[in-house]
Amino acid sequence: MTTSNLEEILNQYKQGTLSLSDALKTLKWYPFVEKKNLTFDTQRYLRRGFPEIIYAKDKNIKTLKEVLKNTKSISPLIMSRLEYTIYKKLKITFPKLKYNKTASIGYLDIPPKNKSGLIAVITAGSSDIKVGEEAAFTLELLGAHVNRFYDLGIAGLHRIMDKIEQIEESKCIIVAAGMEGALPGIIASMVSKPLIAVPTSIGYGTNLGGFSALLTMLNSCSLGSAVVNIDNGIGAATMAYLINKL
Amino acid sequence: MTTSNLEEILNQYKQGTLSLSDALKTLKWYPFVEKKNLTFDTQRYLRRGFPEIIYAKDKNIKTLKEVLKNTKSISPLIMSRLEYTIYKKLKITFPKLKYNKTASIGYLDIPPKNKSGLIAVITAGSSDIKVGEEAAFTLELLGAHVNRFYDLGIAGLHRIMDKIEQIEESKCIIVAAGMEGALPGIIASMVSKPLIAVPTSIGYGTNLGGFSALLTMLNSCSLGSAVVNIDNGIGAATMAYLINKL
Amino acid sequence: MTTSNLEEILNQYKQGTLSLSDALKTLKWYPFVEKKNLTFDTQRYLRRGFPEIIYAKDKNIKTLKEVLKNTKSISPLIMSRLEYTIYKKLKITFPKLKYNKTASIGYLDIPPKNKSGLIAVITAGSSDIKVGEEAAFTLELLGAHVNRFYDLGIAGLHRIMDKIEQIEESKCIIVAAGMEGALPGIIASMVSKPLIAVPTSIGYGTNLGGFSALLTMLNSCSLGSAVVNIDNGIGAATMAYLINKL
Amino acid sequence: MTTSNLEEILNQYKQGTLSLSDALKTLKWYPFVEKKNLTFDTQRYLRRGFPEIIYAKDKNIKTLKEVLKNTKSISPLIMSRLEYTIYKKLKITFPKLKYNKTASIGYLDIPPKNKSGLIAVITAGSSDIKVGEEAAFTLELLGAHVNRFYDLGIAGLHRIMDKIEQIEESKCIIVAAGMEGALPGIIASMVSKPLIAVPTSIGYGTNLGGFSALLTMLNSCSLGSAVVNIDNGIGAATMAYLINKL
Amino acid sequence: MTTSNLEEILNQYKQGTLSLSDALKTLKWYPFVEKKNLTFDTQRYLRRGFPEIIYAKDKNIKTLKEVLKNTKSISPLIMSRLEYTIYKKLKITFPKLKYNKTASIGYLDIPPKNKSGLIAVITAGSSDIKVGEEAAFTLELLGAHVNRFYDLGIAGLHRIMDKIEQIEESKCIIVAAGMEGALPGIIASMVSKPLIAVPTSIGYGTNLGGFSALLTMLNSCSLGSAVVNIDNGIGAATMAYLINKL
Amino acid sequence: MTTSNLEEILNQYKQGTLSLSDALKTLKWYPFVEKKNLTFDTQRYLRRGFPEIIYAKDKNIKTLKEVLKNTKSISPLIMSRLEYTIYKKLKITFPKLKYNKTASIGYLDIPPKNKSGLIAVITAGSSDIKVGEEAAFTLELLGAHVNRFYDLGIAGLHRIMDKIEQIEESKCIIVAAGMEGALPGIIASMVSKPLIAVPTSIGYGTNLGGFSALLTMLNSCSLGSAVVNIDNGIGAATMAYLINKL
Amino acid sequence: MTTSNLEEILNQYKQGTLSLSDALKTLKWYPFVEKKNLTFDTQRYLRRGFPEIIYAKDKNIKTLKEVLKNTKSISPLIMSRLEYTIYKKLKITFPKLKYNKTASIGYLDIPPKNKSGLIAVITAGSSDIKVGEEAAFTLELLGAHVNRFYDLGIAGLHRIMDKIEQIEESKCIIVAAGMEGALPGIIASMVSKPLIAVPTSIGYGTNLGGFSALLTMLNSCSLGSAVVNIDNGIGAATMAYLINKL
Amino acid sequence: MTTSNLEEILNQYKQGTLSLSDALKTLKWYPFVEKKNLTFDTQRYLRRGFPEIIYAKDKNIKTLKEVLKNTKSISPLIMSRLEYTIYKKLKITFPKLKYNKTASIGYLDIPPKNKSGLIAVITAGSSDIKVGEEAAFTLELLGAHVNRFYDLGIAGLHRIMDKIEQIEESKCIIVAAGMEGALPGIIASMVSKPLIAVPTSIGYGTNLGGFSALLTMLNSCSLGSAVVNIDNGIGAATMAYLINKL
Repeated sequence: MTTSNLEEILNQYKQGTLSLSDALKTLKWYPFVEKKNLTFDTQRYLRRGFPEIIYAKDKNIKTLKEVLKNTKSISPLIMSRLEYTIYKKLKITFPKLKYNKTASIGYLDIPPKNKSGLIAVITAGSSDIKVGEEAAFTLELLGAHVNRFYDLGIAGLHRIMDKIEQIEESKCIIVAAGMEGALPGIIASMVSKPLIAVPTSIGYGTNLGGFSALLTMLNSCSLGSAVVNIDNGIGAATMAYLINKL
Repeated sequence: MTTSNLEEILNQYKQGTLSLSDALKTLKWYPFVEKKNLTFDTQRYLRRGFPEIIYAKDKNIKTLKEVLKNTKSISPLIMSRLEYTIYKKLKITFPKLKYNKTASIGYLDIPPKNKSGLIAVITAGSSDIKVGEEAAFTLELLGAHVNRFYDLGIAGLHRIMDKIEQIEESKCIIVAAGMEGALPGIIASMVSKPLIAVPTSIGYGTNLGGFSALLTMLNSCSLGSAVVNIDNGIGAATMAYLINKL
Repeated sequence: MTTSNLEEILNQYKQGTLSLSDALKTLKWYPFVEKKNLTFDTQRYLRRGFPEIIYAKDKNIKTLKEVLKNTKSISPLIMSRLEYTIYKKLKITFPKLKYNKTASIGYLDIPPKNKSGLIAVITAGSSDIKVGEEAAFTLELLGAHVNRFYDLGIAGLHRIMDKIEQIEESKCIIVAAGMEGALPGIIASMVSKPLIAVPTSIGYGTNLGGFSALLTMLNSCSLGSAVVNIDNGIGAATMAYLINKL
Repeated sequence: MTTSNLEEILNQYKQGTLSLSDALKTLKWYPFVEKKNLTFDTQRYLRRGFPEIIYAKDKNIKTLKEVLKNTKSISPLIMSRLEYTIYKKLKITFPKLKYNKTASIGYLDIPPKNKSGLIAVITAGSSDIKVGEEAAFTLELLGAHVNRFYDLGIAGLHRIMDKIEQIEESKCIIVAAGMEGALPGIIASMVSKPLIAVPTSIGYGTNLGGFSALLTMLNSCSLGSAVVNIDNGIGAATMAYLINKL
Repeated sequence: MTTSNLEEILNQYKQGTLSLSDALKTLKWYPFVEKKNLTFDTQRYLRRGFPEIIYAKDKNIKTLKEVLKNTKSISPLIMSRLEYTIYKKLKITFPKLKYNKTASIGYLDIPPKNKSGLIAVITAGSSDIKVGEEAAFTLELLGAHVNRFYDLGIAGLHRIMDKIEQIEESKCIIVAAGMEGALPGIIASMVSKPLIAVPTSIGYGTNLGGFSALLTMLNSCSLGSAVVNIDNGIGAATMAYLINKL
Repeated sequence: MTTSNLEEILNQYKQGTLSLSDALKTLKWYPFVEKKNLTFDTQRYLRRGFPEIIYAKDKNIKTLKEVLKNTKSISPLIMSRLEYTIYKKLKITFPKLKYNKTASIGYLDIPPKNKSGLIAVITAGSSDIKVGEEAAFTLELLGAHVNRFYDLGIAGLHRIMDKIEQIEESKCIIVAAGMEGALPGIIASMVSKPLIAVPTSIGYGTNLGGFSALLTMLNSCSLGSAVVNIDNGIGAATMAYLINKL
Repeated sequence: MTTSNLEEILNQYKQGTLSLSDALKTLKWYPFVEKKNLTFDTQRYLRRGFPEIIYAKDKNIKTLKEVLKNTKSISPLIMSRLEYTIYKKLKITFPKLKYNKTASIGYLDIPPKNKSGLIAVITAGSSDIKVGEEAAFTLELLGAHVNRFYDLGIAGLHRIMDKIEQIEESKCIIVAAGMEGALPGIIASMVSKPLIAVPTSIGYGTNLGGFSALLTMLNSCSLGSAVVNIDNGIGAATMAYLINKL
Repeated sequence: MTTSNLEEILNQYKQGTLSLSDALKTLKWYPFVEKKNLTFDTQRYLRRGFPEIIYAKDKNIKTLKEVLKNTKSISPLIMSRLEYTIYKKLKITFPKLKYNKTASIGYLDIPPKNKSGLIAVITAGSSDIKVGEEAAFTLELLGAHVNRFYDLGIAGLHRIMDKIEQIEESKCIIVAAGMEGALPGIIASMVSKPLIAVPTSIGYGTNLGGFSALLTMLNSCSLGSAVVNIDNGIGAATMAYLINKL
């Protein structure tokens, strides 16, 4: 849709040939802002229900600054996989940019919210907490309560058993696990809530950078769960957020 | 937990040393039935909220008959990947066994239900319908309304656009796609409901039996979705069912 | 051949009770028998402690007959992955050949033994029994007691808990599992006996013919276990047998 | 063909036993220059229509200098994947060497040209611009007009829709995308021009260094496109250049 | 876009609030036909320039009949990977359906055309002709002249050399090769026309179902070529067709 | 099990409603200690027979300190893959922490033991000693005698032959090998003791980070062996330890 | 080279402008015969030293007949991977076609030769003989003496030791092995002759269709050997033949 | 050790010129030297025909020094993949250690030889020279003449054609190539000498660290060649050396 189309829609609405609801429906898809090398989708928040979330890792500082400058007035912004040293450099130009170090998340203009709902975020080991926190902290930014259960690996099954009732109380369960990645299947077998499994890249040798855990989770014989990309805490959080909103 | 433990629990309850709620909590985990070569988890329906679901493909007729004989009095039963010829043979001994041919699903003693909620089940091509129906029909057996949108592949994007508002009305969206598997990401980018992506094994050459579609879905830059195993309609249906129940 | 045997041979030669040619023949290590296309290792039983075990699957009937004809007088014989139809054809020529159908094992001249020791053989699902029986029946042929626990998958964890004490009583534990292959790790975490994990090829899609289960088992964070090839019941049985003999 | 053969051809031409056109045809294949460790194909420009293009990455400075010294008088030269620090060192000896930093391309003696034709170069995200510029800048060096559309990812489909008519105006379309790599298929489905898809290595986890995007592109159900190696902007540019020349 | 939207557009055009060109632009995206389980993209021919092309392999007879019945009045139709036995069954109901056996292509209502342009289709071996013909025959159906060069493998390089001048005369070159897949790179190095490489699944062992040839083609150091999926003659043909049309 | 359950058990025991042996059986599963982000399984030593073994590599110093602080009073502790520089930093706070540099193992409060049993630890090359020592030193910490045979690769087979009798004297054999990984199969063919094969990541090119050796070991036709993860000396040691304890 | 070039060469030779040796040198590269769909390289025997060798597996009967008809008068012919049933059909039209069943090789017009040289062909198991015979019989057709050593697997190492001196007597050694594929490395470590390793597809599970054996052979630490494709007896035979000819 | 040696030993023992203990020591095949952590195979030169060749890359300085100290008096020594900085450190202690920088080879006590035979060493690009030199320089150390042809890639085929006659003059041909790895197959098709193909890891993206070139070489339809591990110049050199010696 071009600017002239937009003018036309507005004129049609003014002249009464287009109803208010039809105009709104159309505009929901419209606006984006074009900058040198960047094309901002300014309506994502309206359409999808969560702010602009940028994967910072493969972007250079110049691009990140352009993103920050342009998003500022349009949408709240979350930056995942933002290294601390990069954050410190961005902070100089954008002093309102905040940061959560364990989750490696930067964020700007996230409006305060009344939190609602409850998501359980579980990790198998203490090495998986980085991924767990990417999910948990994102969910808190999006406006959900989070109940964290960290270091509940299957090598000590009684730790899990003890927590099952608490876990069951949440609306949705996120489980991050590396190595053999068996924890999500174990927990799914004992609960009646949807479960999102996050394979992590923790391990070595035949771990294949997290593929071992991923395959375990995809092949789980415990029904009622689904899987996101390796180390993808953000993906799990947004899926859980949409479930939590229902 | 052994039978003697069970006796103990019951005795304690009788003697008043164990409260009703504590006894129930314990019993929720207990019973299973041991048959030659089979160990039935008889309480799954109670604990997880859906009937016994058996993957029929790698089991021989003898084992399937044993499953049917023993499950009959305990739980409703769904058998996935049940070939028509096998079904016909089982039907002789178990005349109440029913069958859905497109979905390759056999089922027994599924109680009638008031359906509630609405799930959208979408396929990219007509070759993916087999997987789509495994999900859709399972959801109907479990008690959900299903809205089917079949053959909406990305090669004709306008077909998708036209349906987005209808799709948005459901509580959860299942999208099955083979070949490049891009459809779930396209739809996720336009809705605000949780989406479950199902890669199918449709394709050839570099398709790698569905891995091409799986990787596409796991790497999607459209947030708010999760993935199940290749061709795993049952997995998507049970995840969607737990979401629908919320 | 030990050093003392060698000394004896040398002394016999020096004393003239052993001819030069006989000494030479013996010093080439051990006897073997050469037939057209086959070279039999006749001393394996003596050296390794178990009979000749032949993998029958990729051999044609002609070769299998040659094996049977030549091994007969030398060593007990176990034939793994022997299809029933092939067995029936071999039976005509070798009427003493016996067969176990679930395990697909043929055997000849296995001497009766006083069984000793106890091995637990566990399967996650009823589809894995074929592999479980290959292990269990081989162990019984080799002279060990076997305690079978079939269909104990992690989707109903209480079934496992109930059996742990019985499992702990064995000298060594074999666990066969397909799909996500998490069962060996779960059991290993609760026992103090060496555990041999056998991935099976049961599953579909991302199962990759058993690789999913294999990777799970190799990456297990429960220490005290080791893994054999996919569907390799014989491999697990011989490892367990050597442990049991200690 | 040896130097004496060359002499012979020339003599035959002189003596009239070889026509001009036959002599030319032969010479088109002939000359190359042998230096220590290097064998220059001096007629590539004549035969293929584009200058010598060197992949600089795995070559050490000594080799690069030898290449520059010898190519100088024979052919224009493009050096891809040339790191800035290496460029600075080469610049000292070869002051006429130029450099484009975003594209990591060095170039020497590229003759000014009247540009003709129009190629669209599109990237899915801002992280893919590096690859997009390798293609776009190479095309400009070769003598084509380029229309850049950067950051048009499928997570905001309306951005793409808005540009389709402009994209359609070009003779050939290059689309670079990482992660799930779905953009080329989406665009191909809406245009009637040949499309070259370039998978990029942007992503993480199951991205497999760009293989996820590559497989998506190879399995695309949108016909009328072809694929080059991961991150291979040069490959896409030369293919587009040959199409543009038609 | 719904039917009521269509009405609105038409009414606006009638009333003069929408210009002819705007109406056409919109309608270009509109119509599709919904049948049970099928959603036909009826305007593909208009938008993309080639008829509906259906991948027949994974569709059952019932679906193929539905496709034939509905496409008939709307668009010419090409069915790739259509087995001869399936074709014979469809022929009964659709007597106008035609078939090319080497190419395994069925087609219906392809309008006669004045052919234009010239594409070279080359195969490395006689085993690759099946794929070569899928490409060559599709191009002839689409309206291009084709020059076939079959069995020009690199094991006899002089065969290739002899043909290079003829090959150079075409507007675009398709090269199908299995096993090591080196032929496209060899030919690309000697011509100045765009080349489309098609890996075939011919070979064994480490051929990996065509992946060996695919990787060779993607890694070719001869610039000016691009690659399609393994055995994807249709993909190469449509890419070549769009190039030929320029 | 919750604290109140624990109270109940204890009260039941006090009141005589629970026997001593039942109380012990229950308590064996009970206690764990919850710290911020860590959930300690305090009874592992009792249940499994070996101390807490922590994989240090993917944990940051803060987490490792927390582990040391909390485990100190509960269990002996072994830390594998602990880099020397990290060890030096931990040593400041925990002066009793000890370290074995070749094995990269840190350890704390390992009680002195009377060693029993004998395990052979063999490496194929001198590059594999790192992995061999991880196994050998762990076994010594756990209380076993170890007989080391290093650098016995198959390129000089007579070195192996010479040691077979000594190797046979141990209760269990660990063999670490990289590159082609053939040594475990060679040794297994000559002994009658259970053998644990450890693939190492030593090699290059098609070695695939140790997968070459892993596949060799899993496919070995020498029966009586099993395999652990690549470079997993700890895994081999704990398996051998449980065998040695029998 | 075109026919007119050929005329030119001949004329130049006639007129004395081209010497005899130059004419021969050129003609060595020239002739091929073009048939519908086939392009015969008629000079291969002259140039490379062995007859036309056709891979029959992926060719249909019609193509094989065309090959036989055209090659007949030009070159001896070997057809590998020729199934017996296909051979019987070809035999009707070409009664002089001969066949070796174990090797699955058809051959025509192979001239009788004085055999020279000696190649050892070794297999690890009796299942590998099919591949061993493809190599051995091809070598005999090409004119070499072959010494066969079958069923010498590493599970009985003394069988190998006994044969080493005989093996050493050959000019070149071919070793075919499946499963773990360790035999070539073992033999190479004991001889001073070039060794060609042939991985076979015998095995199951993690064997990966022969990749396990292939990787073992490529990673062998025994120097002095090289590898051919999985099951590629012909490849090994031609390599050995060229070595034998030296 | 030959049978006649064995007879001699036995006779010496009978005659009393050899003590029992000396006979025993000798009968254990051949002498080797045991040092802490190292077991030297001192007879390799005698048995295999080339000196001790050590892969230096994964060994630390301490181990390399031990190797140098112990090998010194026993055998000439070649160290492959020896980094320059490591070499400089070793040089201090072992001043007679020499080094070739392009080949990354260190060597000690290589006796001067009369070179014999001729091997052609060819590389496809200038980036492959590192691998080419590892082969070429090793061959020169072993005593062969080497003819180098560097930078003869297939993108300029005429360069190859020009050299074929020179290449044909050698006894054996080594061809190193990265990226698509097609050069060995091209050259093999034009010569009658055995060819050893060396895939190199030069390339990016789908190159997979050299696997692309490896697969090309293994699948080559040009017979008469074999392949070694990726970047394995030493492997190619030793194979060529054994061929050259014939």
